[in-house]
Amino acid sequence: MYLTQNLHNSIQQTPDKVATVFQGRQRTFAEIGERVARFAAGLRALGLQAGDRISMLALNSDWYLEYYLATYWAGGVVNPINTRWSVEEISYALNDCGSRFLIVDDTFIGVVDELRSQCPELGTVIHVGDGPPPGDLYSWETLVADNPPAEDALRGGDDLAGIYYTSGTTGKPKGAMLSHGNIFINAVGMAAEGLVRRGYVGLHSAPMFHLADGAFMNAMFSVGGCHVMVPAFEPVSVLQTIAQERVSAMLLVPTMIQMLVDHPERGNYDLSSVHSVMYGASPIAEGLLDRAMAAFPSAGFAQAYGMTELSPVATVLTAEMHREEGRKTGRHRSNGRAMVTAEVRIVDEHDNELPRGQVGEIVSRGPHVMLGYWNKPEATAEAIRDGWMHTGDGGWMDEAGFVFVADRIKDMIITGGENVYSLEVENCLASHPAVAQAAVVAIPSEQWGEAVHAFVVRARDASVSAEELMAHCKQHIAGYKCPRSVDFIDAMPLSGAGKVLKRQLRAPFWVGHTRNVE
Amino acid sequence: MYLTQNLHNSIQQTPDKVATVFQGRQRTFAEIGERVARFAAGLRALGLQAGDRISMLALNSDWYLEYYLATYWAGGVVNPINTRWSVEEISYALNDCGSRFLIVDDTFIGVVDELRSQCPELGTVIHVGDGPPPGDLYSWETLVADNPPAEDALRGGDDLAGIYYTSGTTGKPKGAMLSHGNIFINAVGMAAEGLVRRGYVGLHSAPMFHLADGAFMNAMFSVGGCHVMVPAFEPVSVLQTIAQERVSAMLLVPTMIQMLVDHPERGNYDLSSVHSVMYGASPIAEGLLDRAMAAFPSAGFAQAYGMTELSPVATVLTAEMHREEGRKTGRHRSNGRAMVTAEVRIVDEHDNELPRGQVGEIVSRGPHVMLGYWNKPEATAEAIRDGWMHTGDGGWMDEAGFVFVADRIKDMIITGGENVYSLEVENCLASHPAVAQAAVVAIPSEQWGEAVHAFVVRARDASVSAEELMAHCKQHIAGYKCPRSVDFIDAMPLSGAGKVLKRQLRAPFWVGHTRNVE
Repeated sequence: MYLTQNLHNSIQQTPDKVATVFQGRQRTFAEIGERVARFAAGLRALGLQAGDRISMLALNSDWYLEYYLATYWAGGVVNPINTRWSVEEISYALNDCGSRFLIVDDTFIGVVDELRSQCPELGTVIHVGDGPPPGDLYSWETLVADNPPAEDALRGGDDLAGIYYTSGTTGKPKGAMLSHGNIFINAVGMAAEGLVRRGYVGLHSAPMFHLADGAFMNAMFSVGGCHVMVPAFEPVSVLQTIAQERVSAMLLVPTMIQMLVDHPERGNYDLSSVHSVMYGASPIAEGLLDRAMAAFPSAGFAQAYGMTELSPVATVLTAEMHREEGRKTGRHRSNGRAMVTAEVRIVDEHDNELPRGQVGEIVSRGPHVMLGYWNKPEATAEAIRDGWMHTGDGGWMDEAGFVFVADRIKDMIITGGENVYSLEVENCLASHPAVAQAAVVAIPSEQWGEAVHAFVVRARDASVSAEELMAHCKQHIAGYKCPRSVDFIDAMPLSGAGKVLKRQLRAPFWVGHTRNVE
Repeated sequence: MYLTQNLHNSIQQTPDKVATVFQGRQRTFAEIGERVARFAAGLRALGLQAGDRISMLALNSDWYLEYYLATYWAGGVVNPINTRWSVEEISYALNDCGSRFLIVDDTFIGVVDELRSQCPELGTVIHVGDGPPPGDLYSWETLVADNPPAEDALRGGDDLAGIYYTSGTTGKPKGAMLSHGNIFINAVGMAAEGLVRRGYVGLHSAPMFHLADGAFMNAMFSVGGCHVMVPAFEPVSVLQTIAQERVSAMLLVPTMIQMLVDHPERGNYDLSSVHSVMYGASPIAEGLLDRAMAAFPSAGFAQAYGMTELSPVATVLTAEMHREEGRKTGRHRSNGRAMVTAEVRIVDEHDNELPRGQVGEIVSRGPHVMLGYWNKPEATAEAIRDGWMHTGDGGWMDEAGFVFVADRIKDMIITGGENVYSLEVENCLASHPAVAQAAVVAIPSEQWGEAVHAFVVRARDASVSAEELMAHCKQHIAGYKCPRSVDFIDAMPLSGAGKVLKRQLRAPFWVGHTRNVE
């Protein structure tokens, strides 16, 4: 299993088909293949050895796709960098994995000097962009032009393919090591689940440095699809691109879906080409799902749940389960069942499997489990026990194997001795027509230990009071689960992966207090 | 990647769903899981060690499916035996792979004594059937009843999963060693190509000892489908079973398709449930394809080409390519393109890739390539060179990567210095309305070195002369390709895998002659 395999197949089968579309530039599979083999030769000419890490700090582009493929082709290991990180965080990752190669685009050129001063091993910096490289940086395009195509290094199987730093809500980030086999099996598994199909045009609007989009990219490689990129998620440019390029498949997070669906200009664009919307990072609120299904009339919505350490998919909630079959059983609120390439269980703190319905930790086993954390054997041994990756997510499983992720174990609210799963409260809040988004966190309470606190983004042109929302909740869920207080905000703070940063929402309340679970 | 993974998932997700149907007996996934774990415990109690081979000599049944899963669960290696083999051939295989365990059903109980006398290492013989075991044989059902469920041994990845003896048209059979990873990736690849889907009911009418049906079985495991077995292919029982069990997917060889489609009682059965017909071993004649598409009105036909050493699929010709898209380009006559999990090339005798359109040897690379031949490092090194499995099949590739298998290299006819591919002549013969099946072979010719000779099975109630068929060919193909002589026969001699045994057809003509390519 080698991640260049389906590039070989696409060059063989559809050399003249458009492989990438970025800002009006189209390249065929034959062209991409040529550029990848030449850039790989350039990397080797610059001293790249098999297994060397190559970091990339850039917005989405067709170059990002070539970066992945050329790194594999050259025999290197990708290390895509979160574009929202501070210089300190980036330096930590580069130093931790000993990266000697960095590729930067025009957006991030300004941090190169500082990174160089903080990363002693960083030797080669390559500029990617349409113009000439600034300073003494190497030019991607010159490397492509000056080097004859290299042979594919053909690393595969258990060979290291990528190091992805997990955002690590506590402590330093950890580098999850994924093999060619890990990522390849996830891609074929996604195709086997019907998430991507031959002939699809896929849109990369979620960040390409994130494994979620990387997995979508590899799944699209497996079906020989066309890749369209936008530099970053921006609702209008995404809507325009969908209509213009007749996009058939997208990977988004619910926040992005909400921004598209509720955008005032949405109705101006033809979205009927979209056939598959994959979302992850968090479940989708039911009201939003209804609006999204109306906005994308031809689309099936499918949820993938997992984590970087699982390459990344563990469970899939298929499009069918978002429709009648799922709704009549309530399983449309779940995160789906074990994907064809994964096993999933719920275990207690002693790793014993729990009866169905009981909340415990979600664990997963199979060929998608990472090799381990880079240079962290203890953290690896703690995370992977007896072959099972421990996700740190709390959840339960129903009789038919559907997994309901309750919360990050640390996001669970313990109030007056009762466990409250924020998701349940958020779903209740989101069912109110005036609520666009809700996030529920624990805040300190002298009386209850922790209290339920809600952050709410109001729907466009809607008005609602905290009291009205609390009353709404009391109608639907147990009293101890209802928010004791509500803050209205304009937008949720989001991680690079599009997840709501609950830690950031929660932090101001906890100054001077200690949370046991954090 | 472990071949028990999807059994675990099906037990978790659909414990009460019917997993197997055989002669009126139904078992759920929970029941199969229990029986598999108990039989695995029984095998261990009888001394099975990890990696030990377990041979099975039996007709199709639900036990055959349990045999595969229980062997993996126990940590063993399957060695399914071709039921058409002589005692001598079976003994050769058992001795070659040092099998100490044999499972036999009532049909083959008569050869046990002879096998025992010829196979000194064979210690444990287990009888499978509804009645009590004869003589001193162990009883499968007693082992299931008497042993508590074992833990899954969880062998996987590169661990040996099965030894399949290839029929070996010349020389002794060779044991192709397939790993868990080989077979698993092929199964997921088949699902990714859309050959099987969730909810399918699969019919095992091709022999379950053959890897073609084994691959279909594993693909059906990956989508959690139901398995229906008939003891052996018999047209009426297959037609009955399709109608009664509402079969949705089948794996057949064209000969079997022909026997179903042209059967006088076919019209008495409702075949509308069939959604996917996979066929392999040989391409399908166009006239037969037309009749088959009419007989199975809801079915997509898909061809898989490969060989045991490729686990077994290398290329897939999708259902779409059997319809307008394929027919207008002539690609419905091809064997398809590289499957998502495989690469395929055409090379010359020095392993250089040939330009499109030129005939050479078909080779394939990827995670589906076998580990090697059991105890035959030289044959392995000859077959797998630089990662590419050399199929021994001649063929060419068109501009879009579609592979056209011309012939086994040894089946190619060289007449007057011209290469004649028997398939082309067979297709021409089969287009005549009076021809049900045709096989074309080389026979010795003083004048031409070899001459083209045809064996023809006439269509039911049809009459046609050799002269008429030769005249028909002259209208459609070059004169040197046309048969010089025709033999009419009642049925083609078939291998256990359902391939026409050309060697057997050819042999009488070559007594006293030597064929260079054989």
